[in-house]
Amino acid sequence: MENESLEKVKQQVVKFVASCNHNRSLELLDLLSQGKMLRSKLILKIAGQTKESIKLCAIIEMIQSASLLHDDVIDEADTRRGKPSINALFDNKTSIMFGDILYSKAFSELTLMDKQIAYTVADAVTKLSIGELMDVELTNSFNSSYDLYFEMIYNKTASLIEASAKAAALLVQKDPTSFALYGKNLGLAFQMIDDILDITQDSQTLGKPAMLDFVEGKVTIPYLLLYERIDNKDKLKSLYKKELNSDEQLWIKEQMVKYDVLKDSIAQAKQIGLEAIEAIKADQNSDLINIMKQMIDREF
Amino acid sequence: MENESLEKVKQQVVKFVASCNHNRSLELLDLLSQGKMLRSKLILKIAGQTKESIKLCAIIEMIQSASLLHDDVIDEADTRRGKPSINALFDNKTSIMFGDILYSKAFSELTLMDKQIAYTVADAVTKLSIGELMDVELTNSFNSSYDLYFEMIYNKTASLIEASAKAAALLVQKDPTSFALYGKNLGLAFQMIDDILDITQDSQTLGKPAMLDFVEGKVTIPYLLLYERIDNKDKLKSLYKKELNSDEQLWIKEQMVKYDVLKDSIAQAKQIGLEAIEAIKADQNSDLINIMKQMIDREF
Repeated sequence: MENESLEKVKQQVVKFVASCNHNRSLELLDLLSQGKMLRSKLILKIAGQTKESIKLCAIIEMIQSASLLHDDVIDEADTRRGKPSINALFDNKTSIMFGDILYSKAFSELTLMDKQIAYTVADAVTKLSIGELMDVELTNSFNSSYDLYFEMIYNKTASLIEASAKAAALLVQKDPTSFALYGKNLGLAFQMIDDILDITQDSQTLGKPAMLDFVEGKVTIPYLLLYERIDNKDKLKSLYKKELNSDEQLWIKEQMVKYDVLKDSIAQAKQIGLEAIEAIKADQNSDLINIMKQMIDREF
Repeated sequence: MENESLEKVKQQVVKFVASCNHNRSLELLDLLSQGKMLRSKLILKIAGQTKESIKLCAIIEMIQSASLLHDDVIDEADTRRGKPSINALFDNKTSIMFGDILYSKAFSELTLMDKQIAYTVADAVTKLSIGELMDVELTNSFNSSYDLYFEMIYNKTASLIEASAKAAALLVQKDPTSFALYGKNLGLAFQMIDDILDITQDSQTLGKPAMLDFVEGKVTIPYLLLYERIDNKDKLKSLYKKELNSDEQLWIKEQMVKYDVLKDSIAQAKQIGLEAIEAIKADQNSDLINIMKQMIDREF
């Protein structure tokens, strides 16, 4: 059932792109690697499968793809989900402009929907782009502000999930505020857990070097807590943006255990997840509760 | 009076960007070089100065700036209108993401306007992006199709001018079809004349090397006509995408005179301009007629 609905979403994306009357865009669409369509799943679980909800899903997936096309240019990424990226296959121009085509087509279709839905989704794209810039700005120097960290991950990761959930609720006259909070917290918890796994998992499980965030200048939630609690702040700072050897990696992990930093980071993510479940309890939607539970009740 | 209105448009852009609550975006906005705001002038001449028309102008200017920010990344341009470009001052990431912020903020504000206006403008951005891609595609090999040339310059140059004029007409309950045609033809004639000047003007007047289009693989209207009429098609094709010496430049110009190509290209642009004037004759708007007349009745 879910796969059938997601298939319909993919077909709707093809229809939207086909209506641009530009064959090259259809060819490029075919070359995009398909993600897990998490935002579509969320929308379908809130709004059910209707013509309108499928369109909303397609719009959100186009926005997500556009954002990744621009990301890949910026990161000079050669692959995306194991397939060659558009900028690697062709060039930056194609990737940037095809991103703009997907963004603008998504916005065109949005203007045909309910005004509040349209504004909600368009506004999330602004936040998403601001989040991308903040992410870079925050790597310029050691950030010790929780507020800036949360503002950044809210914009970069949570805003489009929040908008997806809110827009889905608006489609079926459910309470937009509760579902927006659910989506926001789902996004925040997801990013926090991702940031924790960077430290607790080995590189094989991660599919990239472990403990890379700190090397890249990202002071994530466990590092924020550690910096607040640790006595030897200078030593921690001296390792910032440095290629870490195994002794240094071990020292950081030991300090994180000593100061209960990982435990408390996980507890914070779980708390945010539980607030999300609380926000939508009136809806008694066991699927949504399980999505959140599976994410926070995992091995770290 | 006009300057006062354009000042209000600039202030409105600042207000829109300020409402994103991201100081860095305001700083970046301040670094953008200001264009002639041709689209705003057009909107104000059609819709007059009201709160709504100023907002529409600001939205269109943000879209235009976003498109130039992405262009500068693609062209690796160091300057824009004599000022250093954002990608040169900072990096591609900043330029792409600030472009996305301006695009999405413009779309967010559009969703608060009349649906037909919102759709018209959003759809033009899709066309604009398709036009940019077509422009590159058409330089892959010698294009001898008029249809493709006109489709490309319509998308790349005329679509946003068309949308600006149509949206302005919709704001004040004027006939959207007539004003859309005026805007479209203004854009087409503008691009054709730009393509003709590449051949007739010297590099000092152009501010860039003369006859650069053909070297860059662009088969513009005079070349299309020449290719159709010339006996020695092979020689013309042999010069395509080649650094031309002065003898070769001279040969092309002589052939263009011999086959009446420049004269007829200018005549075509004028005809398109006259159709634009005809389309809006019921409105008796002397400003709009003069804008078009000044463009087509010039020295070549």
